[in-house]
Amino acid sequence: MNKRTGKQTVTFGTPPVITATAAIVGSKEGQGPLRAYFDQIVEDTMWEMDSWEQAESKFQRVTFANALAKSGHKADDLQYILGGDLLNQCAGTSYGQREAGIPFLGLYGACSTMALSLAVASMLVDGGYATCTAAVTSSHFCSAERQFRFPLEYGGQRPPTAQWTVTGAGCAIVEQAGNGPRVETYTAGKIKDMGIKDANNMGAAMAPAAADTLAAHFQDTGRQPADYDLILTGDLGSVGSDILIDMLKEQGYDISQNHNDCGLLIFDSQKQDTHAGGSGCGCSAATFCGYIYDQLKRQNIKKVLFAATGALMSTTTVQQGESIPGIAHAVSILA
Amino acid sequence: MNKRTGKQTVTFGTPPVITATAAIVGSKEGQGPLRAYFDQIVEDTMWEMDSWEQAESKFQRVTFANALAKSGHKADDLQYILGGDLLNQCAGTSYGQREAGIPFLGLYGACSTMALSLAVASMLVDGGYATCTAAVTSSHFCSAERQFRFPLEYGGQRPPTAQWTVTGAGCAIVEQAGNGPRVETYTAGKIKDMGIKDANNMGAAMAPAAADTLAAHFQDTGRQPADYDLILTGDLGSVGSDILIDMLKEQGYDISQNHNDCGLLIFDSQKQDTHAGGSGCGCSAATFCGYIYDQLKRQNIKKVLFAATGALMSTTTVQQGESIPGIAHAVSILA
Repeated sequence: MNKRTGKQTVTFGTPPVITATAAIVGSKEGQGPLRAYFDQIVEDTMWEMDSWEQAESKFQRVTFANALAKSGHKADDLQYILGGDLLNQCAGTSYGQREAGIPFLGLYGACSTMALSLAVASMLVDGGYATCTAAVTSSHFCSAERQFRFPLEYGGQRPPTAQWTVTGAGCAIVEQAGNGPRVETYTAGKIKDMGIKDANNMGAAMAPAAADTLAAHFQDTGRQPADYDLILTGDLGSVGSDILIDMLKEQGYDISQNHNDCGLLIFDSQKQDTHAGGSGCGCSAATFCGYIYDQLKRQNIKKVLFAATGALMSTTTVQQGESIPGIAHAVSILA
Repeated sequence: MNKRTGKQTVTFGTPPVITATAAIVGSKEGQGPLRAYFDQIVEDTMWEMDSWEQAESKFQRVTFANALAKSGHKADDLQYILGGDLLNQCAGTSYGQREAGIPFLGLYGACSTMALSLAVASMLVDGGYATCTAAVTSSHFCSAERQFRFPLEYGGQRPPTAQWTVTGAGCAIVEQAGNGPRVETYTAGKIKDMGIKDANNMGAAMAPAAADTLAAHFQDTGRQPADYDLILTGDLGSVGSDILIDMLKEQGYDISQNHNDCGLLIFDSQKQDTHAGGSGCGCSAATFCGYIYDQLKRQNIKKVLFAATGALMSTTTVQQGESIPGIAHAVSILA
């Protein structure tokens, strides 16, 4: 049995179906250009919980429940939940999925988690290990800021390269049969570290990983950027997107005509003061599970290459003067 | 294609082979009962690096390199490295595998990571998505203590239920063909939280998850505990092991005759003052990849059920008064 296409890509024999998705976001995301595509917009940053961390878990829990309900399945029909998040020890997911009663495979891909979880779910479904799975992730501006940067009360200045962590969650139900867009290929990412040390410039840290994974995808499949309606990166924002386009141009791939980025789509950076764009696991999760999934269902997009990107540092490694490794995982999805 | 056995278990059609392993540990582990089974014992807690976190990454990097060399493969032969660890944002793994140049799937299972990574690697190999993979994890007493508990310089007292985080790493090469023990089944764990809030009693927090996964395994496969030479839990230590045995007895499964725990094996708790035993991702990793793999190769153990356990809390969730969710993933391995 060989399902491999080239060095880094697998092609699914029976492309798994994304039968349902859900996306729930916070207030600021609900004021952005994608507001019509979310299941729910939660105005209260605490969502009636006692902490932002508990609120983030609630985003995951309710988003999963929504996606499950839309799929018509009961929890008992699922063999695996695959998920992770940015909080220390992936606590957003562990506590968010604590009561699901479904076998749980914890993943860590930082902001690439939506693509990573879709990819692993697809391999388990196509491989015959599951008939139905959920891929889920979340982030929360307030829990991320105080963990990675400063207490919110401090009111620190943000440089123009900084991105705004999305408050939100996305969940996709990935299964063997049913109607919906299909996951066709997966190109797994390598860790790339070009020496960027500025934790306020994640886009630059992640762009080389995105370029590496996308170039590998084109080489492995023999495709060109124009073969896709949309090449969608996770959360490079404006700085990282420009770098990505330049890096791929040097390798002979021009994605400038059909590239977009979840971090650019989810906010109106000019009006919403989000600087270089959105970020966080919830950024690509809510954009993909909300807006992109809708566009695939309506056949407005027929073929998307979704490459979510993650920065794999911690506050400890940054404080110790380490550079920031990036990773990008890409799945191609057909309407 | 249906490879499922019961609700939570998959059975591999072509059981993946663990063709090589490596285990490297620190000084205290090197003074313990398993000292003869490790590839290397590193006396310097910093291992010539600038921080304990960098040292933990070096444990992973060198352990992976050793396992790869023993397997006779070059890095280019591997399609995936699967790994994770306990440091915030799994930094031990991201930085440890940064230069590997191999597609990387990040996992988060806390101390269950060795079994989780073996399980996911096995599904990807058996499913035809990879011919050769590496499953790897690590922990470090010093980086864990200062992240989860107190600065080492503080010299805090440790209660009798506390466990000692193992300094060490383990890596297994899991592939389609070759000679070595084979991964036969995987029983995926559900998150279980029985309300334990004492972060110095991880064994009690994780025991219900271990009981749940093991009971599911016996139910799914129709097997009895006596069908295994050894039922090996990850790092329940003495407190958790006693709870596990009692919980399973109530469900009709007596594992008292053939159960052991990596946390009990790796240290001589009486002589080494490690209280309830060892813990950390490196505990089950070094015990499995060092001692147990050797016993399987020598056919001293012919059939082991390896259920590594993880506690999925963070310092933030504990400080916020949350209880500690546990998880256990079980793989059965034949000599």
